[in-house]
Amino acid sequence: MDSAEFLDLLGNANRRRILRLLSQRPCYVTEISEYLGVSPKAVIDHLRKLEDAGLVESRTDDRRRKYFSISRHVRLEVTVSPYEFGTKSAYPASSGLDITSCRQVSIELDINEDLDAEPRDDRTGEDRTDGDGPDAGAENSEAVAALADRLNDFESLERELSLAQRWAQGRITALREALAERIDHGDPRLVSAVLVAVADGTSQVEAISRETEVPPRVVEDVLEDLAAAGIVEREGRDWSLVL
Amino acid sequence: MDSAEFLDLLGNANRRRILRLLSQRPCYVTEISEYLGVSPKAVIDHLRKLEDAGLVESRTDDRRRKYFSISRHVRLEVTVSPYEFGTKSAYPASSGLDITSCRQVSIELDINEDLDAEPRDDRTGEDRTDGDGPDAGAENSEAVAALADRLNDFESLERELSLAQRWAQGRITALREALAERIDHGDPRLVSAVLVAVADGTSQVEAISRETEVPPRVVEDVLEDLAAAGIVEREGRDWSLVL
Repeated sequence: MDSAEFLDLLGNANRRRILRLLSQRPCYVTEISEYLGVSPKAVIDHLRKLEDAGLVESRTDDRRRKYFSISRHVRLEVTVSPYEFGTKSAYPASSGLDITSCRQVSIELDINEDLDAEPRDDRTGEDRTDGDGPDAGAENSEAVAALADRLNDFESLERELSLAQRWAQGRITALREALAERIDHGDPRLVSAVLVAVADGTSQVEAISRETEVPPRVVEDVLEDLAAAGIVEREGRDWSLVL
Repeated sequence: MDSAEFLDLLGNANRRRILRLLSQRPCYVTEISEYLGVSPKAVIDHLRKLEDAGLVESRTDDRRRKYFSISRHVRLEVTVSPYEFGTKSAYPASSGLDITSCRQVSIELDINEDLDAEPRDDRTGEDRTDGDGPDAGAENSEAVAALADRLNDFESLERELSLAQRWAQGRITALREALAERIDHGDPRLVSAVLVAVADGTSQVEAISRETEVPPRVVEDVLEDLAAAGIVEREGRDWSLVL
């Protein structure tokens, strides 16, 4: 699902209320209709849109009633600033992602622990298939407490990551402003975009053009100006910052 | 601006296109109207909504033409999962935020460096007010290259934080599913919410009720059931996990 489709769906207050309700429990149309004070016909219409986007799914229970639930985990980020309007939607990263490969962010949780939290007490291992013994009950209690504790850790982590991201974006805006102020000629936004691409290690005109969506001819002009000012330099076809 | 207001504004494709355009450069109504192929009247209407929300501002230039630009930095995060529908909108964290106070996330940038990047070469310090000398030009070039480099670092950081957040949210969903599967009686979502509050150190019924928005009477029943199963325990009025 792309961000535009997601934003179109979320732009309606009743659809947001339906999603909030379904995230608490799966519901039938009549329940949603009563809870929201909206006609069943309108609810069906909203549900169809959410279903078409793959955000909601329906099942039929043994009394042949159709109930709806949220089928997907999706995340959307929107940033609006004087220098940026960015929307990004994504599914959660696979749990196999090696988060330790991040170069600048490190996370202080014991992330390699088995999160599915089968109890680690090997003494009870042989009883595991026997779900009725007294040990199975104790084992389950232990696992529930451990999962709740773990879930709380991840929720704290999520709050910190969100805070860190807002902090980083505040710095990005401040840096963009500072950079724009120091660029004397040409369009500061255009020049900044080219410069940041070069700083990112993109060295050749064609690649910079693709990354910045600026025509190669214009990229070349900007680079020549920047070279004249002693900000970038060229070696063969490769451009880099003078640092 | 609350998330609902933000989502209502972003739910319209033309308003999104206006924001994207204004993030590239400030514009007049006629420019926006031509670029979007939308009547000036409709553009004015969208701009008024964006202005009322404080997202866009206008200035009048010396030829008395009114031009519009984005006035604020705002960030929105939306999470949809079978267990959660969360929207969060926020201004960027203040640059004075001490990011090192985060317990679980650490960032490997030299965050204390002065980001406003006045060149650090003290030899040229006395020339600084003389903006026309050759040193001033060299100094400026150095600052521009340093700022571009720094901006690129922060943009990479932002991408990693976004990835880390998606990873954390994937783990949260998996943990919620694992927890729901192991809860034998009562509503798994309700029981999970109470458990996570207890895991977070919220120990008394009233406080758990406020945090989970579940009536105190119900919280008490859930806690008694969990105590009977050996998952939580009480000491006086304080509940905690049995770990």
